[in-house]
Amino acid sequence: MSETRTELSELGEFGLIRHLTSTISLSSPHTKLGVGDDGAILDSKGKQVVISTDLLTEGIHFDLSYMPLMHLGYKAVVVNISDLCAMNATPAQILVSISMSNRFSVEAVEELYAGMLKACEVYNVDLVGGDTSASAAGLVISITAVGYADEGETILRSTAKDKDLLVVTGDLGGAYMGLQILEREKSVFVDAPQIQPDLAGHDYILERQLKPEARVDVIRAFKELGIKPTSMIDISDGLSSEILHLAHDSGLGSVLYEEKIPIDHTTYDTAREFELDPTMCALSGGEDYELLFTVSQDDYEKIRNHPDMTVIGYMTDQAAGNQLIAKNGHVTELKAQGWNAMKGED
Amino acid sequence: MSETRTELSELGEFGLIRHLTSTISLSSPHTKLGVGDDGAILDSKGKQVVISTDLLTEGIHFDLSYMPLMHLGYKAVVVNISDLCAMNATPAQILVSISMSNRFSVEAVEELYAGMLKACEVYNVDLVGGDTSASAAGLVISITAVGYADEGETILRSTAKDKDLLVVTGDLGGAYMGLQILEREKSVFVDAPQIQPDLAGHDYILERQLKPEARVDVIRAFKELGIKPTSMIDISDGLSSEILHLAHDSGLGSVLYEEKIPIDHTTYDTAREFELDPTMCALSGGEDYELLFTVSQDDYEKIRNHPDMTVIGYMTDQAAGNQLIAKNGHVTELKAQGWNAMKGED
Repeated sequence: MSETRTELSELGEFGLIRHLTSTISLSSPHTKLGVGDDGAILDSKGKQVVISTDLLTEGIHFDLSYMPLMHLGYKAVVVNISDLCAMNATPAQILVSISMSNRFSVEAVEELYAGMLKACEVYNVDLVGGDTSASAAGLVISITAVGYADEGETILRSTAKDKDLLVVTGDLGGAYMGLQILEREKSVFVDAPQIQPDLAGHDYILERQLKPEARVDVIRAFKELGIKPTSMIDISDGLSSEILHLAHDSGLGSVLYEEKIPIDHTTYDTAREFELDPTMCALSGGEDYELLFTVSQDDYEKIRNHPDMTVIGYMTDQAAGNQLIAKNGHVTELKAQGWNAMKGED
Repeated sequence: MSETRTELSELGEFGLIRHLTSTISLSSPHTKLGVGDDGAILDSKGKQVVISTDLLTEGIHFDLSYMPLMHLGYKAVVVNISDLCAMNATPAQILVSISMSNRFSVEAVEELYAGMLKACEVYNVDLVGGDTSASAAGLVISITAVGYADEGETILRSTAKDKDLLVVTGDLGGAYMGLQILEREKSVFVDAPQIQPDLAGHDYILERQLKPEARVDVIRAFKELGIKPTSMIDISDGLSSEILHLAHDSGLGSVLYEEKIPIDHTTYDTAREFELDPTMCALSGGEDYELLFTVSQDDYEKIRNHPDMTVIGYMTDQAAGNQLIAKNGHVTELKAQGWNAMKGED
């Protein structure tokens, strides 16, 4: 972070936008016109357009006392790209709106933008528009992401079929355990946006929380494997909540095997250190931005050896409800607690 | 407004979204899938996609002590549709993200949504996605609007030509004078979102401020008149600021005749009552959401009798600068003060 502090008022709204967007280059063949006019012009090139929007609010979705602004910018973009992945679309553009109080300097906003532009570079996405505004208090980031898919290629939440296999990518619970570490360390940080937390130790789970990635690689893998999932959703709120969405929207029930849920050993060890149940962290922790999807049993051979895909259960008739089969064989009803519920009252 | 007060926490985020979006019907042929999945699916049907986003922040862009929530919702949508008009695109979809504190009830959010859905109905636009979030303080509304235009049909700010005529739609300064009335009356309202201001008297200028409309009719008129403006922008920040944008981005100068600026008689009379210069209100007031565009002199005959279009000047060489010719013939440099500057320190 730079030593100087430039007040937002020195640049004004138009000056700030020009300053932040002056270095942007466009790379997507779907982008005809970027920042600088009343709107951006996109060319779908015969594909369907998939669009999604997410809002991140200070004090609710992030805490600047341990979330560096560059990481926040990166994560804000990734969260939106993950939504497009969950539709099986290839991300191409984002629009960014930021509302912030004058406690933020121009340099602080530059850090935030640098993180967003880094994510754009990593995911081959163009930043094509946006808005900035002063606010009475706090920071609010609103991002809209645009992607493209051939007709018939998009995948909904509502189209899983009875007996389909339930599959998850990567591993779960890590982002939530990273958050626990950060909240424990929070007392050492001054409540100011300039402070960078010390990220030494617990690297994997801290990165899961602070710098998650969207599974664009999985979208590509589907094509390489020659499969099309029958339904898909991304895991932003915890595995149980997302399974219930898929099942409800598809008019089905589900069976989930606790022993099959992929949990990294560092997530497991940290959960034990905090006296938390690792399975509960995976079920209710959220923010892992992995993909949850269903495939026909006929596709099992195509995915069984994929290192990033784990079959964790299957879909059933709606009347059977949503069942969690514990490691000891005990059957309970799968419930969504979600991230906020787990956080308790604090 | 309903007498009952339901807390946002009673519904939760998913419950609130379901509640607000349950009555939405889709009408655009460009909409394939609306609210309810990770993203919406749009079909451009071979047209170019035009996309724009705007952020409205409580205390900066609106004051709930005199802006009823239903009007705020309507205006928030109109502001975005106006941006698409300024690109000569036909609006078709919006995505809405709202961040609000728990001082708002479910009924208050319903009012806000009712206003947005009313605008969707008036402008034949589908609400296809969005996000809601709690916030530590205040209300922030982020809207992304999507429209469509045939290739070659979009109109930029940067393509005006030397000697083109400078044309404005409707009349200017009314929204700013409406704001002056509201600020004068503010003391009679309790600072609570439920309060509805008394709108009696000053109807026209109050409506210009509280319920502006986007000039989709002008976009249609261009086709009927057989003209394509050479450049266009919408008037959100005041006429002078927008002329300077057009001129700068097109690498030109401009000449504006004060006597040609269209000002409604109620705007004029109210400005005099407030001891303000009516011309200054039109130049710097903003929020009129009229269109400012340039046309070739060859098209003059096609627009000269249009009741909603007024030629106010012409484009010149950049070296000539931007000139304001006063009613007495005195020439001054056109400067952008903008809305915030006019508001002063309060």
